[in-house]
Amino acid sequence: MQKVENTYVYGKNPVYEILLKNPKRVNKIYFQNGIFFDNRLKRINDLAFQNRIQVQYLNLQKFNDYFEEKPNFQGVVASVSPVEYLELSDFLEKNSKDYKRLVILDSVEDPHNLGAIIRTTAAAGFDAVMVSNHRAAAVTALVEKISSGAVNHIPIIKTTSLSASIDILKKHDFWVIATQMEAKDNYYEIDYTNMNFALVMGSEGKGISKTILNKADFTVKLESNFESLNVSAAAAVIIYEAKRQIEIKQKPKSL
Amino acid sequence: MQKVENTYVYGKNPVYEILLKNPKRVNKIYFQNGIFFDNRLKRINDLAFQNRIQVQYLNLQKFNDYFEEKPNFQGVVASVSPVEYLELSDFLEKNSKDYKRLVILDSVEDPHNLGAIIRTTAAAGFDAVMVSNHRAAAVTALVEKISSGAVNHIPIIKTTSLSASIDILKKHDFWVIATQMEAKDNYYEIDYTNMNFALVMGSEGKGISKTILNKADFTVKLESNFESLNVSAAAAVIIYEAKRQIEIKQKPKSL
Repeated sequence: MQKVENTYVYGKNPVYEILLKNPKRVNKIYFQNGIFFDNRLKRINDLAFQNRIQVQYLNLQKFNDYFEEKPNFQGVVASVSPVEYLELSDFLEKNSKDYKRLVILDSVEDPHNLGAIIRTTAAAGFDAVMVSNHRAAAVTALVEKISSGAVNHIPIIKTTSLSASIDILKKHDFWVIATQMEAKDNYYEIDYTNMNFALVMGSEGKGISKTILNKADFTVKLESNFESLNVSAAAAVIIYEAKRQIEIKQKPKSL
Repeated sequence: MQKVENTYVYGKNPVYEILLKNPKRVNKIYFQNGIFFDNRLKRINDLAFQNRIQVQYLNLQKFNDYFEEKPNFQGVVASVSPVEYLELSDFLEKNSKDYKRLVILDSVEDPHNLGAIIRTTAAAGFDAVMVSNHRAAAVTALVEKISSGAVNHIPIIKTTSLSASIDILKKHDFWVIATQMEAKDNYYEIDYTNMNFALVMGSEGKGISKTILNKADFTVKLESNFESLNVSAAAAVIIYEAKRQIEIKQKPKSL
């Protein structure tokens, strides 16, 4: 797998090439507002649509602010992930002797939290992290660094619709666990050992969207004496509680 | 308690004033290398010594790099904490109906980790965080922000010698738990419910110093499938495991 060193790819031909060869690495396409769409830009737009990649229009001023080191960007820039995202269908097809466990992030926008949660999920030996295409941090070189390289050690599934992906997971015998301040049960009061599960974490500000909460099979809370926990700390606590339960079950004599 | 907004105090009189009135808020004094010590600077140096505040000499060039917005600093700058540190003796004198629990940070140098751990420790309802004066991040405005203000909700004990402070804690019936990759027991295999305890976390690079490991009553490990956990994630996992055990004990029927 060829390593893409930069977080951004600039200009018509480079953006076209990455969309053609590695669409699963592209986080987002930025077009300059009002630019004339020649054939190449039209093809870029089509490829973005076909691969369900988000497109954003920026004014020239914002372009110059964001990408000041590249004045000849020809009106188009691609944000590129250092890793190739996995398709949910490919993840589900993979055989596993064990139950599958994944962490789903609902609109976690802070790249530090994203990187920290990917690191912890890999550390716990979970099977994947799922992130949304919209209103969420993408995997960038910064996230890779914060994750201490863990983005290369655990599959990251990118989806255009968390809600639809959760429906698919449920059809494939996954139980959905959502964290919510108002939940009745504590996170340690459910049994994580006997099921495929997806643990959904929300952003600190907004929590988990109602649509997704309504699909959850369990909601769990994590109590705090002072405000709420940071989302990456909360994720670590719940992920390692699941790991603890699984380890104890595997070695019943150790406790 | 008057709020100090800035992380730094500049110039002879302001530094002298804060040392006189609020020595427990001063993280460190910086003197310009080679400066002539007039009476005021001598008094500042004496007060720093009396209050066991670290002193560092910087070249004029470094001063200008660090504190460029204040050219008239008169050869002296104080790094000031937004909160007043607590003395260990005052912490120990406080009566408590319950066992006391604290987290000790051995040379955690990253202010993000310091802020995150203070926030988690406050969230879990622990009684204090102890940090060292040397080779460790101090509580600054940045740490206050990252802690989400938790530095104002949990006492922070600053010590010039972690080793000596741990000896004092042990004399006061505290058990010392240190985290170590090579430990035999998992962090969830010890009982946190029946004791005063101090949980020692080390920096990611260096771990916990040998002197302190030798004083530990328990060493525990936290297993990972990918490198080690980030220190603030590891702290969250262990702190909340202790909280879980304590809660289950208090409500035996809930599980």
